[in-house]
Amino acid sequence: MRVEVLAVGTELLLGQIVNGNAAAIGQRLAGAGLDHFHQVVVGDNLGRIKAALQQAVARSDAVIVTGGLGPTQDDLTREALCAAAGVEMAYSEEMATHLRDLWARRRGREMPASNLRQAEHPEGAVFLPNARGTAPGLRLRAGEAWVFALPGVPQEMLPMLEEQVIPFLVAEAGEGGVLLSRLIRCWGESESGIAERLGDLYESSANPTVAFLASAGEIKVRLTARAATVEAAAALLDPMEAEVRRRLGHWVFAVGQETIEQIVLRLCRERGWHLGTAESATGGMVAERLTSVPGSSEVFLGGVVAYSPALKAALLGVPPALITEQGIVSEAVALAMAEGGAACLGADVVVAVTGSAGPDPGGAPVGTMVVAVRTPEGAWARTVHMPPDRERARTLTSTAALQAVRRCLVGEEW
Amino acid sequence: MRVEVLAVGTELLLGQIVNGNAAAIGQRLAGAGLDHFHQVVVGDNLGRIKAALQQAVARSDAVIVTGGLGPTQDDLTREALCAAAGVEMAYSEEMATHLRDLWARRRGREMPASNLRQAEHPEGAVFLPNARGTAPGLRLRAGEAWVFALPGVPQEMLPMLEEQVIPFLVAEAGEGGVLLSRLIRCWGESESGIAERLGDLYESSANPTVAFLASAGEIKVRLTARAATVEAAAALLDPMEAEVRRRLGHWVFAVGQETIEQIVLRLCRERGWHLGTAESATGGMVAERLTSVPGSSEVFLGGVVAYSPALKAALLGVPPALITEQGIVSEAVALAMAEGGAACLGADVVVAVTGSAGPDPGGAPVGTMVVAVRTPEGAWARTVHMPPDRERARTLTSTAALQAVRRCLVGEEW
Repeated sequence: MRVEVLAVGTELLLGQIVNGNAAAIGQRLAGAGLDHFHQVVVGDNLGRIKAALQQAVARSDAVIVTGGLGPTQDDLTREALCAAAGVEMAYSEEMATHLRDLWARRRGREMPASNLRQAEHPEGAVFLPNARGTAPGLRLRAGEAWVFALPGVPQEMLPMLEEQVIPFLVAEAGEGGVLLSRLIRCWGESESGIAERLGDLYESSANPTVAFLASAGEIKVRLTARAATVEAAAALLDPMEAEVRRRLGHWVFAVGQETIEQIVLRLCRERGWHLGTAESATGGMVAERLTSVPGSSEVFLGGVVAYSPALKAALLGVPPALITEQGIVSEAVALAMAEGGAACLGADVVVAVTGSAGPDPGGAPVGTMVVAVRTPEGAWARTVHMPPDRERARTLTSTAALQAVRRCLVGEEW
Repeated sequence: MRVEVLAVGTELLLGQIVNGNAAAIGQRLAGAGLDHFHQVVVGDNLGRIKAALQQAVARSDAVIVTGGLGPTQDDLTREALCAAAGVEMAYSEEMATHLRDLWARRRGREMPASNLRQAEHPEGAVFLPNARGTAPGLRLRAGEAWVFALPGVPQEMLPMLEEQVIPFLVAEAGEGGVLLSRLIRCWGESESGIAERLGDLYESSANPTVAFLASAGEIKVRLTARAATVEAAAALLDPMEAEVRRRLGHWVFAVGQETIEQIVLRLCRERGWHLGTAESATGGMVAERLTSVPGSSEVFLGGVVAYSPALKAALLGVPPALITEQGIVSEAVALAMAEGGAACLGADVVVAVTGSAGPDPGGAPVGTMVVAVRTPEGAWARTVHMPPDRERARTLTSTAALQAVRRCLVGEEW
């Protein structure tokens, strides 16, 4: 089953946004064992969308189109689909009613008339529900290929891809059996360092396959097995997982979909401890990541973003003399922030971050970050060196802070 | 002059990296007034690279190929170029010597023999020097088109593009014209609502063109003009910008690249006011967005993430009786959080957020959010209804909070 991705949008050609959708779809296709040989981008131009669709339909078994489904005049994907499939445009009164309801319910106002374009569809196409936006997706047959049209907004597109497109394609591929993936999540070593330790498995193992993926400081090792049943696929994965864990040791922090945020909250809940944050350089990112988890309010009490030195003293009780003596980017200050946070927030576990995110050095070379953790059992601090890029340094440090909490809670050397 | 981008690399198809090169090249081409209608990605497969190159050469005046120039067996761009141009592979003893020198000088060791592949080139091709890596680029004529092959590493590719490719293409194009874009950024109205008000401009205006783009609750209207000089293009944009502003009124919050975070910080700085945050439902996201701006520490003092009701009382001084009477998701509580935040943080301007992000309703229907702003000149609160999706509701609310600060600071009705 060859699947091709066609992204529609002049903003992609102008470089105003990066085609992250194509990468995200590529990851999902690889995970599902579907072949993926071409990605194409064209602008909001009917002739070029049509031509790209016709070529894709001719050389692939399925085409995933992203973008061009909005309500405006430059959303032309529906028209191009009609041309590629050789059908007329139809109109769904049912979808129109659904869209009007959505507007009334979610936005509390009447739908602009132009949004009725989203009730149009090529004859014979099936609407794909969009739980996070108004633009429905479409599935239709064009020549010998399946064509899926999904919205360009990633938050809307990805759930539709995962829940409605990939399972359909895997069933169509019909190779029988199941494809089972397992994610082994690592932190604390580079992608090349991990790849080196697993290089022979990557080269030689065909079932399960071994693949690597790096994002935001975390390295994911993905094992994928194909077998007649879920049980048989799991039996192929088990020894490979054991071997990978043996080689990577304490770099492995999780297997599966549980995120580091979820792990930290679960570990605190298991101990009956409440959690808080005391952040400077990360500016609220650690708190934001923790509160992105539904139900986090059971464990997470709150945090202080003490961005100015004065607030580190006023809210967290960091002695100004300590700041003067040790510097604001120091383990002593980070530890004082964590202890002060525990007092101020009434929390059992507090993670504190101070550092220099740049571009101007704030008392330490740009990229120098200090993380401290206090629990009822002790307090620990560590200095880490991040790339001198503000956003990367902040993101990687927020991950380092969450990993530090996990290690302190499970009693791992840190 | 139509320029096409062809990216080579299986890691792009697997989604292990995002095709940021294509976006970066697209930006440079637009800036130089060169047309750019297609971007294609293929993996490290000779047949598919050849086919993509042949198609690109047939429909475009120039093709920029990225990737596949490394020393390993799966770097196949050179071979594909020979096929597309119908020439044999040649070998440059001069380049081989240069590469050996580079290795000795930069890495202090002997070059692996496999790197001699980088001294190979299609007959008639010109080497393009690479100041930041070992893989030289190539320029050659294939059919009626110019083909440029550049390394895939962005830090090597971009300087070569800017210094060697774009100037060559602009000279070849010989039109001497420029393409100038202007982004008009809107908030507070849907994409379709804005498109309806600008529909006739979109339909009828060819120069400048009008386009729409939605992301994270913000709608961008992009005007693009083509003219002989930057001044002439600006003169085409000015009346169109004025007309768009006239029609969209206070929905327009900025023109250009300045983000809402930067605008809020600038407005505070201009008034000599310091800024703080008091967040519940957004969990630190507003603080995190503000501190993503370099230099934010001049204006932003810090924030409180008062996630638990107890902390709203303890840190922000919200009277528990108020919470009981009005509910935790209420304008009265949000206003009390903003006032309490000003006292606790020593800030002049404080934005407060409370709400129910879900999945469980926390005293109000999921998606109900309240934003309050206090400045030395007054205090305002407003309830907004967001989609019942936790991450979308939080992201959109953080934008709403920043927009609210802007409106209060410029004295716009909110």
